[in-house]
Amino acid sequence: MGNQKPLRIDGELNLIDHIRQRFTKPPKGLFDGSAAEALYGVPRLAIGIGDDAAVLRAGGKDILLTTDAMVEGVHFDMTFATPFQVGHKLVSVNVSDIYAMAGRPAYMLMTMSIPVDRVAEAGGFVAGFLDGVETALDTYAVELIGGDITSSKGGISVSATLVGFTERPVLRSGAMAGDGIYVTGNLGDSACGLHLLQRINRPVAIEKEETINIPLAWRVMEPLLRRHLMPVVNAPMGNLRTNAMMDISDGLSIDLRRLCTDSGVGARVYETSLPCSVEMIEAAAFLGLQPTMLALCGGEDYQYLFTSPEPVSGYRCIGEITESGVVFIDADNKQRELIRCGYEHFKD
Amino acid sequence: MGNQKPLRIDGELNLIDHIRQRFTKPPKGLFDGSAAEALYGVPRLAIGIGDDAAVLRAGGKDILLTTDAMVEGVHFDMTFATPFQVGHKLVSVNVSDIYAMAGRPAYMLMTMSIPVDRVAEAGGFVAGFLDGVETALDTYAVELIGGDITSSKGGISVSATLVGFTERPVLRSGAMAGDGIYVTGNLGDSACGLHLLQRINRPVAIEKEETINIPLAWRVMEPLLRRHLMPVVNAPMGNLRTNAMMDISDGLSIDLRRLCTDSGVGARVYETSLPCSVEMIEAAAFLGLQPTMLALCGGEDYQYLFTSPEPVSGYRCIGEITESGVVFIDADNKQRELIRCGYEHFKD
Repeated sequence: MGNQKPLRIDGELNLIDHIRQRFTKPPKGLFDGSAAEALYGVPRLAIGIGDDAAVLRAGGKDILLTTDAMVEGVHFDMTFATPFQVGHKLVSVNVSDIYAMAGRPAYMLMTMSIPVDRVAEAGGFVAGFLDGVETALDTYAVELIGGDITSSKGGISVSATLVGFTERPVLRSGAMAGDGIYVTGNLGDSACGLHLLQRINRPVAIEKEETINIPLAWRVMEPLLRRHLMPVVNAPMGNLRTNAMMDISDGLSIDLRRLCTDSGVGARVYETSLPCSVEMIEAAAFLGLQPTMLALCGGEDYQYLFTSPEPVSGYRCIGEITESGVVFIDADNKQRELIRCGYEHFKD
Repeated sequence: MGNQKPLRIDGELNLIDHIRQRFTKPPKGLFDGSAAEALYGVPRLAIGIGDDAAVLRAGGKDILLTTDAMVEGVHFDMTFATPFQVGHKLVSVNVSDIYAMAGRPAYMLMTMSIPVDRVAEAGGFVAGFLDGVETALDTYAVELIGGDITSSKGGISVSATLVGFTERPVLRSGAMAGDGIYVTGNLGDSACGLHLLQRINRPVAIEKEETINIPLAWRVMEPLLRRHLMPVVNAPMGNLRTNAMMDISDGLSIDLRRLCTDSGVGARVYETSLPCSVEMIEAAAFLGLQPTMLALCGGEDYQYLFTSPEPVSGYRCIGEITESGVVFIDADNKQRELIRCGYEHFKD
């Protein structure tokens, strides 16, 4: 302390960079590992701050650790979401980080801070939230092993730490020029679902098969609302030859830039290759939105972005890794810089 | 879901009990372990919800995991604490849970949710908070390996997950009738420091050697304020023969009852054996408070309560484990039920 440059924060990435630089310890000479490893012979830190999860190398399987917080008014809003959905999503977003490292989730710890008057209310937040957590834990075969429950003076905030394991973690930093860029599923569905929800302007208990009657077919709305309110994340297939991988949580554009930065490479992405669901395209027309913008800039897709040196069947190739620059080839075959967009805390 | 009794919450313990019962999975027949262990051959869950930390059994050293959240207005108040102290304490309270399992802390993940306007402020919360985190991490030789930073709409909330390791965890549930009951240090200092701070009614930058001039000697106030604002926790000595252990975070009375409940035993505690510092006794007289009440009911001592079947030198024996009942022998040698007091969220 005392010898850092004054802390100036302009966006979440800047703050994360500051913390990564400040708290990443240099290798310790002979030991070439962490303080704890040198002192006590415990698993050493293989990957620290900055990827989807930290990696501890224990001899057998690597241990993966990730944590995510969700704050009322920022990540969820009880005028748009049910407590069940908040609990379900807390588990899913953390599981997504483990899958993004080519790992399997196993155990979860959870914190829950709730205003006193909202804890006691019958049929209130806690009961529904725990239902959602339990349903998601069952879905992913994850066990809750600990946590902390506190009161709060403002809104509700929750966080979870997921523990997973992997034989071989896949990092953000391994992309090589010439790799194909792949995504594991449709982009923009969640963002489109959020726009629909803002139009509907109240919670939709999709977990209870509630339907909504607005001038857009329910078969169109349902998968989009579900992707936003209650995403179920799927592990990428296990036998892929991947050089780099991460989950798409803040939008393809910003997340692809992060992968390129961490790998020291560039990328070329084709508009005509972006996977958009027929439901998203139809709903975007209804809402007056552009599908391509939803696919590039919409957050919370919880699909995976990966690169591979060989053709991969079963997943959509959206472009290729290049030496430098992040460029976009539009439907008219015009080349431009990929639009800068996506969700950042503390920006604007 | 759907088959639980309606959730009625009356105090933090009730809610934790509900979650423990609901989320603790029964052993799975032949495998006798968790779903993840059965499916993927990962470390099995040895101890889940309810102790100071969860325990995963990996073959070599056991992995310890604990998480704690701190919420503005509940755990800290910027009219009484500096950002440095909040960061320092977040690390210390989590380290305390690892020490309480006879473990050594190694790695930490952290979440931080901060209102946008308080992130940008120069010399504001973030810079001081990170200074405090860094100082504490250095103190305990713990490395920050990941986290999540988000904006918030209300106050600040932070959480940390500590990863530690141990050769042999010591649980809350192992106390046996006949064991001596020990504490590792003075009780009530932190609570007394909080009372002083409320009298002083503004932050005291004890980390910058700030002193305060009220009609009580600084040599008396300083250790009490420090214990409350910036506790440094110490691992209990390593070669103790302990049957049960936990940290004293909510007050000796409530925490001893928890240990007795989990061990299925009772306890007898002697007023004359309670370790009270000379500073606490002097400050209590100044404040018009009873030292015994501070020692029994004051939270955040972050000392350890343990039981041992044999005499332990170096730590204070405050009583003995019995078959049942939690009784208190006062200074006049009168026996009564141990007072029920201590900090609980969601109570009153």
